[in-house]
Amino acid sequence: MTASIAAIQSVRLDDEKSSVVILDQTLLPNEKVFLSLSSVEGVWDAIYHLKVRGAPAIGIAAAYGIYLGTKQSQADGFIGLQEDFSNIKAYLETSRPTAVNLFWALNRMEQRLYSEAEKSVDEIKKALRDEAEKIREEDEQVCLSIGEYALSLLEPGWGLLTHCNAGTIATAKYGTALAPMYLGQERGYNLQVYADETRPLLQGARLTAWELQEAGVDVTLICDNMASIVMKEGKVQAVLVGCDRVAANGDAANKIGTSGLAILAKHYNIPFYVCAPLSTVDLECPTGENIPIEQRSSEEITAKWYEKPMAPDKVKTYNPAFDVTDHELITAIITEKGIAYAPFEQSLSELAKK
Amino acid sequence: MTASIAAIQSVRLDDEKSSVVILDQTLLPNEKVFLSLSSVEGVWDAIYHLKVRGAPAIGIAAAYGIYLGTKQSQADGFIGLQEDFSNIKAYLETSRPTAVNLFWALNRMEQRLYSEAEKSVDEIKKALRDEAEKIREEDEQVCLSIGEYALSLLEPGWGLLTHCNAGTIATAKYGTALAPMYLGQERGYNLQVYADETRPLLQGARLTAWELQEAGVDVTLICDNMASIVMKEGKVQAVLVGCDRVAANGDAANKIGTSGLAILAKHYNIPFYVCAPLSTVDLECPTGENIPIEQRSSEEITAKWYEKPMAPDKVKTYNPAFDVTDHELITAIITEKGIAYAPFEQSLSELAKK
Repeated sequence: MTASIAAIQSVRLDDEKSSVVILDQTLLPNEKVFLSLSSVEGVWDAIYHLKVRGAPAIGIAAAYGIYLGTKQSQADGFIGLQEDFSNIKAYLETSRPTAVNLFWALNRMEQRLYSEAEKSVDEIKKALRDEAEKIREEDEQVCLSIGEYALSLLEPGWGLLTHCNAGTIATAKYGTALAPMYLGQERGYNLQVYADETRPLLQGARLTAWELQEAGVDVTLICDNMASIVMKEGKVQAVLVGCDRVAANGDAANKIGTSGLAILAKHYNIPFYVCAPLSTVDLECPTGENIPIEQRSSEEITAKWYEKPMAPDKVKTYNPAFDVTDHELITAIITEKGIAYAPFEQSLSELAKK
Repeated sequence: MTASIAAIQSVRLDDEKSSVVILDQTLLPNEKVFLSLSSVEGVWDAIYHLKVRGAPAIGIAAAYGIYLGTKQSQADGFIGLQEDFSNIKAYLETSRPTAVNLFWALNRMEQRLYSEAEKSVDEIKKALRDEAEKIREEDEQVCLSIGEYALSLLEPGWGLLTHCNAGTIATAKYGTALAPMYLGQERGYNLQVYADETRPLLQGARLTAWELQEAGVDVTLICDNMASIVMKEGKVQAVLVGCDRVAANGDAANKIGTSGLAILAKHYNIPFYVCAPLSTVDLECPTGENIPIEQRSSEEITAKWYEKPMAPDKVKTYNPAFDVTDHELITAIITEKGIAYAPFEQSLSELAKK
């Protein structure tokens, strides 16, 4: 198989170190377009218009933006460079004001700037490039490490289920919940991945199914409400999800639908794993009760925004029309001749005779 | 409130008994168009093109089709009328060959034809009209009865969750799972209904949210993967679903996603009710294992077929961006510094210190 994860790195510097190359995620899954951005304005636009998304990827893009901007500075001393840096930083901060990783990366770049204050302007510019590269490399290492740990819990041939997109395109490389799938692929694990489409914004269909298919991983797209049947049919041996925030007691906030998956997994006795960079573990937050939940617009659910195909071409799907609910889960069956309770063999046949 | 269920009867004879009036369900939720069909060809077309859908509604439409067709027969004796009847019946059978209720209704009309063989042609034609009306009325009674039984299990002010469309437009009137909601409305129960959108074909968004809103019932549309959070938040006191087929042991086949809802309901200790006309109870089918599951096309999941809004205008929605998964449901949290198991307070803080 020639496809591999290497072909879809979503944020990197080009070989000449003069542009940031970004995979335009707004065009997925219909077009795979890499943008070559040589100005800080280009980076701002890519973040603002969600061409780059995923907390780590945004942080990396912002760090590269600082590098590109300061590289073009005409300042001939630290004071001038610092002034340019501050303007660029303030500008990039407006690209996505709610993205915590954006601020984290920009602040880290600023710390590096100050720590190099004694150096020449050219040396400082190079140090900023190194810092941006380091942010990217560290994120790749975090993902790789999560992938190794996760893979240690899996066995070759397993079926895996994931939700939303915790993938390579949201990070420097590998992703979090998808990292063991890529590592498993490199090592011949022959994993089969089921990807929830993840309504309302379909990140699973548009992004996860796309990137796994693009990298040659065996992926099958399902609607969110099909998770129960694929588990019941024995197709899934582990569930792996990413997370936005983990409370000190382990309660984990993630894309809507995650908690339902966990309940299904428990019911079917399937392990449910949360893949979490330690930066998402918030020990100051005692439990999930303390995590506020964002409410989003109706239009995401109701509007006609699917004017293009919403999943990659030729992606495998599994589309059962209905499922069977075990009688042990049913409180009562209400018929026109009365209400049947368990044991249903008896109550239903009695009603049928009425 | 002026809105009521009476305004959306989906299949009926007009006052002159010369046409079948059908609500064109293919135009919902964007347009409410009633078709007045005076020919058997019109009825065939309405069934074939899914303008009328829902097993009982299809059966009723077919019975009315027989009535319209025989009414126009030029035969002057039983033999001639019988020949015309057979042709009409064979023709209508081709409108939706997989619909069990279609054949059931046509056969019942045929039995009535034979039972009236001694009568005059005009009397037979009138008997066929009566039989078609009886099929409609009986279905309404079945739904009403299911609604009464179901309502006896509910309390005023409750929140209810439903899936797919087991509603008035699929039946003569009231529907099955939605029947108690309409009866509750008539009696001032002030029920709040949460409707799963029901991917991939969105019957919940397009049909259930539409008909409940049209009738003035308080309805909130959610994506399928939001059922867990509305249950967790205490918004739902009972789940009510329809069904396609119930096995003798109570295992119930229904729209994909139903079994997952039942598992969630059990987890949150919420009663889960299946509303089932006895015609769907198959005592010959021992368990759900014996029910084959239809697999449908990929395009339903992947294609760009939402060119119009997919939910009624101004419908209430609930659209939380993420949810919190209780730590008791998480097998392990995988970080870049190791794998945390319960108790997470301890394991997470140890990893964070590494």
